[in-house]
Amino acid sequence: MLFRSLSIAIASGALVHSAAAVKAKNFIYVVPDGYGVPSQVFARDFYSITNGQGTVARPDTAALGVDSIVIGTVKTQASDNLVTDSAASGTAFACGIPTYNGAIAVNDDGEPVASILEAAHLDGFKTGLVVTSRITHATPAVYAAHVLDRDSENEIAGHQVGYNHPWGSVVDILIGGGRQHYLPSSEGGSRTDSVNLVNWAIEKGFTYAADKPDFLDVQENGTLPLPFLGLFANSHMDYEIDRNIEEQPSLLETTKASIETLVKATSDSEKGYFIMIEASRIDHAGHSNDITSHLHETLMYNEVMLYLKEFVEAHPDTQLLSAADHECGGLTTPDGYDPTVLARGQHSGEYLAKVISSYEGDDLAGLLRDTILPAVGLQGYTESDIQNWASASVSDAGSSILAKFAAEAGVNWSTGGHTSADIMLYGYVHGQENLNYMRDNIGGFRDNSELPGYVAKVLGLSLEDATAKLRSNGTSFVQKRHLLREIKKRANSIARAHSHE
Amino acid sequence: MLFRSLSIAIASGALVHSAAAVKAKNFIYVVPDGYGVPSQVFARDFYSITNGQGTVARPDTAALGVDSIVIGTVKTQASDNLVTDSAASGTAFACGIPTYNGAIAVNDDGEPVASILEAAHLDGFKTGLVVTSRITHATPAVYAAHVLDRDSENEIAGHQVGYNHPWGSVVDILIGGGRQHYLPSSEGGSRTDSVNLVNWAIEKGFTYAADKPDFLDVQENGTLPLPFLGLFANSHMDYEIDRNIEEQPSLLETTKASIETLVKATSDSEKGYFIMIEASRIDHAGHSNDITSHLHETLMYNEVMLYLKEFVEAHPDTQLLSAADHECGGLTTPDGYDPTVLARGQHSGEYLAKVISSYEGDDLAGLLRDTILPAVGLQGYTESDIQNWASASVSDAGSSILAKFAAEAGVNWSTGGHTSADIMLYGYVHGQENLNYMRDNIGGFRDNSELPGYVAKVLGLSLEDATAKLRSNGTSFVQKRHLLREIKKRANSIARAHSHE
Repeated sequence: MLFRSLSIAIASGALVHSAAAVKAKNFIYVVPDGYGVPSQVFARDFYSITNGQGTVARPDTAALGVDSIVIGTVKTQASDNLVTDSAASGTAFACGIPTYNGAIAVNDDGEPVASILEAAHLDGFKTGLVVTSRITHATPAVYAAHVLDRDSENEIAGHQVGYNHPWGSVVDILIGGGRQHYLPSSEGGSRTDSVNLVNWAIEKGFTYAADKPDFLDVQENGTLPLPFLGLFANSHMDYEIDRNIEEQPSLLETTKASIETLVKATSDSEKGYFIMIEASRIDHAGHSNDITSHLHETLMYNEVMLYLKEFVEAHPDTQLLSAADHECGGLTTPDGYDPTVLARGQHSGEYLAKVISSYEGDDLAGLLRDTILPAVGLQGYTESDIQNWASASVSDAGSSILAKFAAEAGVNWSTGGHTSADIMLYGYVHGQENLNYMRDNIGGFRDNSELPGYVAKVLGLSLEDATAKLRSNGTSFVQKRHLLREIKKRANSIARAHSHE
Repeated sequence: MLFRSLSIAIASGALVHSAAAVKAKNFIYVVPDGYGVPSQVFARDFYSITNGQGTVARPDTAALGVDSIVIGTVKTQASDNLVTDSAASGTAFACGIPTYNGAIAVNDDGEPVASILEAAHLDGFKTGLVVTSRITHATPAVYAAHVLDRDSENEIAGHQVGYNHPWGSVVDILIGGGRQHYLPSSEGGSRTDSVNLVNWAIEKGFTYAADKPDFLDVQENGTLPLPFLGLFANSHMDYEIDRNIEEQPSLLETTKASIETLVKATSDSEKGYFIMIEASRIDHAGHSNDITSHLHETLMYNEVMLYLKEFVEAHPDTQLLSAADHECGGLTTPDGYDPTVLARGQHSGEYLAKVISSYEGDDLAGLLRDTILPAVGLQGYTESDIQNWASASVSDAGSSILAKFAAEAGVNWSTGGHTSADIMLYGYVHGQENLNYMRDNIGGFRDNSELPGYVAKVLGLSLEDATAKLRSNGTSFVQKRHLLREIKKRANSIARAHSHE
């Protein structure tokens, strides 16, 4: 293997022009799901101004997090829609092919296609998936599962933990929410096959954690035992703004522990690691047009990226790439918008909807007036608004309150779904020659399906070989192939209906 | 001067690492005014699909024009507003300083600041400004005029042609619309000082052209006599989709002639040229939420950039940089949008409003039904819509018709003004080492005020020296300084009102 020459070239300060010199041992890939250009602009302005860097009337906002590592822009499309969902886009940037909306690492014909994570595993790399959505949600799913329909999350859980993946377990660290898809209905889960995948994983040697105390308990000097399964919520983990810091780790905390673990696990090995980290819920907040949650998820993404950039700076054998799967919500920031209004937002709409739904008193208007609206941060409302919200469904009232708050901040959402806007490409690697190589080979304007080819190139992997191996004993592990046509149709109509549940 | 070493380095194939090696002789700077990320996405999808590259249901759209030269992204802010206008942003990328909305090459205190074009002129370079708006509009104005208020377009004309610029004439090629600001009211213009700047310019040696036949007549082997003044419309030149190709040259035609002229004029000189080319009216179509005009202006911008990229490829002594001044309109392309609907659009809203306004018959509903709506391309309307439009003001009817057409194409405009969205940075220069230098020195994420510093660096110019020279005989040529406070206030309220007239 040639990747060792990288650190030698850098250590000697020599300019090495051979392709071999730019191969890396490890790759960190980060997906800010549903994060568009205006998400970053708004977060940057908010962060700068609330931290004393200028004011709305005298702006002097400073670069934030990922701003320092812009290397290009990415086009996102499904094979059957100008606007992609996370499944088709994830399959593109994990497996290198365009496919239909709803597809989890299968092509237009429903045939399985290997992901860069699977190719890495096959070659002896350690691997990880660290997210804040259900771990069975589309983006993490495409790396270690092959199903026709993103909604088959029970099946996805079975694949990704190794229970019915043709290769067994291919992921050494699985962290996120989604416990329900690992547990049978008899134990509070949603599995209908009565299999308890958590117990199965433990039997296979996984260490399991269900909350933050567990997560901290099992660590030794900041590293996790491998393989590791952390399922910190039944469904998605909480939005960062709602998170109880005693109960759930942040994405920054799970990222740090995972990276340290993978470093330690591969320190004596020729083979390194591949990890995909997802700031999953930027997207969910976009779907809900919840600007406060969108902001805080975006800020957390920037925190994670800043940590990773510094990590990569100190580890020249490791490359970092990050791109959203698509924009979500059609956010725009017209003249007159005021990011500082968001400082008043204390909770997500999702959290507050639960508060309302579980309210058993008889003064819903009072709850809205005294608890909900102050937590949203909304100031400009009338008594008649409150009466309307109190008599509406929780969902309708929530949408209306969030829309009013967005208007108060002066921002605009154009949709509850995705848009086709190009998204930014961020990348970093230590050393000028390596950076030039990265810019030449993946910088500039790219189709999302080009991204894993670059990862494969620098790690010395072959997606084609991995796919051939994946199919070598038949492809019957991809179920319901006779329903493919129907599944495709349904997936696009769901995308149109803006679901993210 | 060191810039000669560039072509030597490239000719010999040597890798030259000294800063001297990357200096250029010429610089081409292109501004797509009001062009955001979704503008390009929409234009790319339209162009691909209407040219047989995939369909809406099976998209396979190909890179378009500037897509091939993405090098970064740019933050745009005024010193007094999170959302900039063209004047403040233009002053940032022409002169290198943040300033207030409405400022034409003056700082927050109303003091004049030299532009990169003025610095180039001072150093013996040839210069040009080639636009499709009034040549006195904000973007071209900031390069050769110093006034407190962008609306002082008569005064701007006087500066930019040299009539009352402290250095006399600093621009060798002036092309655009805006004739009214060059002519006294007695001759159909808007000047109140009874000065005919066209005649003045001719006396000073300018060759003048007022239409396309003139423009072609004065050319010799595709080049213009210098200095040259082309004023092809009283106000803005026509939108590309409305343009009578016998009467007005396209931006591609004026660009080609100008570049060839500057090449010829500097072929025997050590000093080269600086030219700013603006696709001005992408912005105007954004303000009007006129998707058809926005599309065709964006396509023309891409055509111009493709020509320039090929030109620069063949001229290693020339660098190309392009960035919008800001986004305009808050365009988004949600799931379900259909760019092919735009193939039906035959004219701009501006053009059709003139047709309605000049209609003298008594069947306005008939005119709408038979002429206007087919030219817009709108299909989904009712007889009651037509009656409403026929009885509304032209402006209200026009807005309503354009909004309905945008909805038919499935796109969304969020504002009639600008937004704070980061805009793309495009750049190109021949040779890998030069490109690496460009990426290192101006690629990635930038503030718009950083841009002219790069141009100055590669051309070997000093903005500071030019500003000192500009102020050396006093700054009384910047008029109305005592009104600065009032002017600033007004400029922001106008920006909020979304004017672009």
